[in-house]
Amino acid sequence: MIEVEVKARARPDTLERILASGAVHVGTENHRDLYFNSPQCDFRKSDEALRIRIKEEGARLTYKGPKLDSQTKSRLELTVQIDNPEEMVQILEALGFRLSAEVRKRRTKYALNEVIIAFDEVDGLGSFVELEARGDAEWEQQRELLLSLLKQLGLGESIRSSYLELLEENGRTS
Amino acid sequence: MIEVEVKARARPDTLERILASGAVHVGTENHRDLYFNSPQCDFRKSDEALRIRIKEEGARLTYKGPKLDSQTKSRLELTVQIDNPEEMVQILEALGFRLSAEVRKRRTKYALNEVIIAFDEVDGLGSFVELEARGDAEWEQQRELLLSLLKQLGLGESIRSSYLELLEENGRTS
Repeated sequence: MIEVEVKARARPDTLERILASGAVHVGTENHRDLYFNSPQCDFRKSDEALRIRIKEEGARLTYKGPKLDSQTKSRLELTVQIDNPEEMVQILEALGFRLSAEVRKRRTKYALNEVIIAFDEVDGLGSFVELEARGDAEWEQQRELLLSLLKQLGLGESIRSSYLELLEENGRTS
Repeated sequence: MIEVEVKARARPDTLERILASGAVHVGTENHRDLYFNSPQCDFRKSDEALRIRIKEEGARLTYKGPKLDSQTKSRLELTVQIDNPEEMVQILEALGFRLSAEVRKRRTKYALNEVIIAFDEVDGLGSFVELEARGDAEWEQQRELLLSLLKQLGLGESIRSSYLELLEENGRTS
């Protein structure tokens, strides 16, 4: 499926504006994200990502393809639920993939019609907002919806870098 | 974990001898096994395997390392349960792995103390017995136990080839 997503750095009034928009609080999750790099090609250059996300309710393995446009983070996303993240780490390492970074964050989710608003507090990076479309519309339409909501929430420019890339820029990854 | 396993071609009296050994019927499963090869190295040469097994109760992703001895099929096995085998196929293909073969079989399982006896009817190959140790003993001890049970069941030499390799020898894989 195509994951249509935009991201921006949060501002002091962002949480207040999310609530004022009519968005409904959905829940809070703690994410421990393990990123792997390929033995074949450098995912930083090919703009791909392979991640194990561990949260309270369970774990998932996710592949993300290269970004589809120059404005947003929209990209192919493939994901499966897994019962044992430690064993998945061992499988990936046996296949030649290497753990490249770990990202921890606290995500508070809100729903506004077909959009999920995630307020992320990322260890070592600060607070961000990610907007993700969940509807059945074409991805270009969803992108416009998200970019206009970003504006409505008073948020600045869309950041296309992942938390992993932002942490690497900061030189804080393991 | 180390999977300690021996395999032999079934004989006309094998099922009868399994039941006469005191083994208890556990259940019957239909397996659809999808094998993948690596973009980096040929798993046939490196003696590794990467498989998605789909059965009625769910699916698993399994990696098997090279065999540990010259008599049995014992090897490192790493496995996770996955909720969506089709999406797992897409993730593996996105990472450069290629579907190399599909193996279908009907497995009837029996338990005899710490040993699982699997009577396998493999599409295109015929019937086989696999003995797998489940105890906490050292793998060399388990191997001796399995080789002696193989003899007790009147079965011939231990076959170290996987069903995938046997099908490849027969030239019947897709």
